Amino acid sequence: MTPRSIRSGKKTPFTPLRRFSENAQEQVEVLDQTLLPYREYWLRLNSLPDALHAIRAMQVRGAPLIGVVAAYGLALGLWSDASDRALDAVAAELVTTRPTAVNLSWAINRMCKRLRPLPVSERAAAAWVEADAIYAEDARQNRKIGEYGLALLQTLAQGTGHRPLQLLTHCNAGWLATAGYGTALAPIYVGKEAGLETHVWVSETRPRNQGLLTSWELFEAGVQHTLIADNAAGLLLLEGRIDAVIVGADRIAANGDVANKIGTSLKALAAKHCKVPFYVAAPNSTFDFSAQSGKDIPIEVRDAGEMRFVSGQDKNGKFAKLQQISDASAIYNPAFDITPAELVTAFITERGICPPDPAALAALFKEIPPHA
Amino acid sequence: MTPRSIRSGKKTPFTPLRRFSENAQEQVEVLDQTLLPYREYWLRLNSLPDALHAIRAMQVRGAPLIGVVAAYGLALGLWSDASDRALDAVAAELVTTRPTAVNLSWAINRMCKRLRPLPVSERAAAAWVEADAIYAEDARQNRKIGEYGLALLQTLAQGTGHRPLQLLTHCNAGWLATAGYGTALAPIYVGKEAGLETHVWVSETRPRNQGLLTSWELFEAGVQHTLIADNAAGLLLLEGRIDAVIVGADRIAANGDVANKIGTSLKALAAKHCKVPFYVAAPNSTFDFSAQSGKDIPIEVRDAGEMRFVSGQDKNGKFAKLQQISDASAIYNPAFDITPAELVTAFITERGICPPDPAALAALFKEIPPHA
Repeated sequence: MTPRSIRSGKKTPFTPLRRFSENAQEQVEVLDQTLLPYREYWLRLNSLPDALHAIRAMQVRGAPLIGVVAAYGLALGLWSDASDRALDAVAAELVTTRPTAVNLSWAINRMCKRLRPLPVSERAAAAWVEADAIYAEDARQNRKIGEYGLALLQTLAQGTGHRPLQLLTHCNAGWLATAGYGTALAPIYVGKEAGLETHVWVSETRPRNQGLLTSWELFEAGVQHTLIADNAAGLLLLEGRIDAVIVGADRIAANGDVANKIGTSLKALAAKHCKVPFYVAAPNSTFDFSAQSGKDIPIEVRDAGEMRFVSGQDKNGKFAKLQQISDASAIYNPAFDITPAELVTAFITERGICPPDPAALAALFKEIPPHA
Repeated sequence: MTPRSIRSGKKTPFTPLRRFSENAQEQVEVLDQTLLPYREYWLRLNSLPDALHAIRAMQVRGAPLIGVVAAYGLALGLWSDASDRALDAVAAELVTTRPTAVNLSWAINRMCKRLRPLPVSERAAAAWVEADAIYAEDARQNRKIGEYGLALLQTLAQGTGHRPLQLLTHCNAGWLATAGYGTALAPIYVGKEAGLETHVWVSETRPRNQGLLTSWELFEAGVQHTLIADNAAGLLLLEGRIDAVIVGADRIAANGDVANKIGTSLKALAAKHCKVPFYVAAPNSTFDFSAQSGKDIPIEVRDAGEMRFVSGQDKNGKFAKLQQISDASAIYNPAFDITPAELVTAFITERGICPPDPAALAALFKEIPPHA
C-alpha cells in the first residue's frame, strides 16, 4: 500500500482529507476530528455508512467539509449500484445526516445534477471525479476568501493602535472545517504569508470545544493566539481589545441572516454594541437563497451527552471521558444559532466583500438557483 | 461531639455554612463547593489559613458567602492574638484573597469597626458574635430580595404567554452563594412557596461550571430547570423564549455598572437587544459607592488550569480530572466582567427595586459610606 496524497495534512494548504487510489480502487481518508487535538488519526471511509457516521458523529465537521465528505459519500454509495433508485436513496440518506449546514445539500444536488444524465455504468467513476472537483474548488475558493479578507484586515490594521491586529473568532472555521485554508481563518493564514501580524482570541466553543481545534491549527501555523472561555468575549469587546470578529457560517439566508455555531449571535450582539466590525466568511455553497430569512433555517439540536460528558487526557496521556452533569439534569443542546443580518458588517466571499443586503447578495451570486 | 447546627443544609433556608460550639470552642463548617454536585462534604475551618484557602480555592464562593466566611476567618484569626497589630494583619490577609467581590472588604471593614474599640481580651468572643450577625443578616436580607423580586416576577407572569415563567440565570447566585436563599434565585424560591411556577434556563458558566451548582439547587428545591451551554443564551433570547434574565453581582459601582461572573455582559447585551428585562439581585453589601464606575472595579484573572483541566465522575463514580487543553495553548481566564449600567433594567435589593440610576441608588443606600 502506497497512499498517494493529493494533499497531505503536513503540506500547504493543510487539509483534513486525503485522496488516493489503492489496488485500482478510489480511496478517501479524513482526519478524525473527535480525536483531535489529542491524536492525529486518519480514518478510512470504506462505504456509505462510514461517511454517514463520520458526518453524524462529527468526525468531520465544518459546513464546507461536510459538503465535500457528502460528495465522496455519494461516490462510495454508488459503488455497487448506480441506478436512479440507488442515486436517489443515497442522496436522501446523506442529506439528512445534519440539518443546518446547507453545503451538504448543495454538494449532493450538484453531484446528482452531474450524474443523473450519465449512463448508469459511468456514474460511479464520474462521482469520484465530481467529488474531487468540489474538493479542489473549495480550497481554491477559500484561498480567494483569504485574499479578499486580507485586504479588509490590512485596512483595519492601519486604523488601530493594536499591534498585532486583535481578532476574535468562534468555533473552528479553519482548514479543518474545509478542503483547505478555512473560511474565517483564511484571511489570517494568507495574512501570515503576506507579513500581516495577527493575534487571535479563540473562544472555546462549548460543548464540542472546536476552539481547541482552532488553537491547534493556529499553533501549527505559527499564528499568535489565546484561548478564552466563551463567556470572556463580552469582556474583551467591551474593554476595546478586539479589532474585528470573524466567523464562518453553516447557512446564510437570502436576507443575510447567518446560521453558525451556537454562541455566534452573542458575539455579534456584543460586537455591534461595541462598534467592532463583525465579518462572516463563507463560499457561495453556504448561501441558501431558498431560505428567505433565518426563520427558514432548521437548527440542529444535538444529544445532551455532548454536554453531560467531558473528555481529555488522563495522567498517562490516555484519552478518557468523565460525566460532568448528573443524569437528573435536563439539558438543551442546540448546535447553531441565527445571527440577524443587521449585526453583520460584511460577508467575505470568494467573489469579494458584500454587505448584508439582499439585493447585493443576490447580485453577487446571481447565477445560483435556490437550493432544492 | 454533638454539632448543634444553627442552620442545616437540609432545612429551609438551605445554607452552605454550619455554626456550632464543641468543647466550649466556636466552630464553623462550610459545604465544599469544589466537590459539589458530586459529593456533599462539610469542611471544618479550624484556622485563619483554612479560611483563606477556602476562599481562594473557591471551596466557598459567591460574593455574599465570601463576606460571611471572611468574617468567620477573622474570628478564627484572632484566636491566639487579638491585638491591634494582629487585627490589622488578619484583616489585610483576608481582604486580598479575592479582588472583585466587594462583600469581602465590606465584611472585614464591619468586623474591624466593631472590634477595634473593644478591649483586646473581649475581641475574640465579640468577633464570633459579629460574624454570626453578618451571617444572619445576609439570610434575612436575601429573603427580602426574594419578596421584592417575586412582586416583579408576578407582574411579568401576567404579561407573558409563557407558562411557566421563563427565566434565564448565569453562574450560581442561589443559597450556596450566600448565607441562605441566594440573591438571583431568592425570588424563584420565594415564588415557589407562593405558588408562582417558573422554569429556569441555567447557563453552564465555564470554566468553573457554577451552573451545575444552580441546577443542583433547583433540583433539590423542586424548581423546573434546564441546563444550557453558555453559548445557547443568545438563541433563546433571540427566539423570544425568555421572559427575564436575573443574575447576582460581585460588586456594583455608584453609577450602576455591575461586576459579575464572566459572561454576564453577553447575556445583558442580548437581553437589551431583545427587549427582555435584565435584573441584578444584590444586598447593600455588594454596592461599592467608592467605585464611580466599572472602570474602578478590579477584575480577577484566575489560573489557566481552571480551563485546561475538566473534572467529573469516572465510570466508577469517582471524582477525577482530565487535561482538556494542551500545555502549548496560551489561556486567558478572567473571572468577572462588567455589565454597563445602561443594560440593567433594575436592581432587586432588600430595600426594594431600584433603577440603575446613580441618584436613586445613592438615595436607597444613603447611610452607607463608601467602602475604604
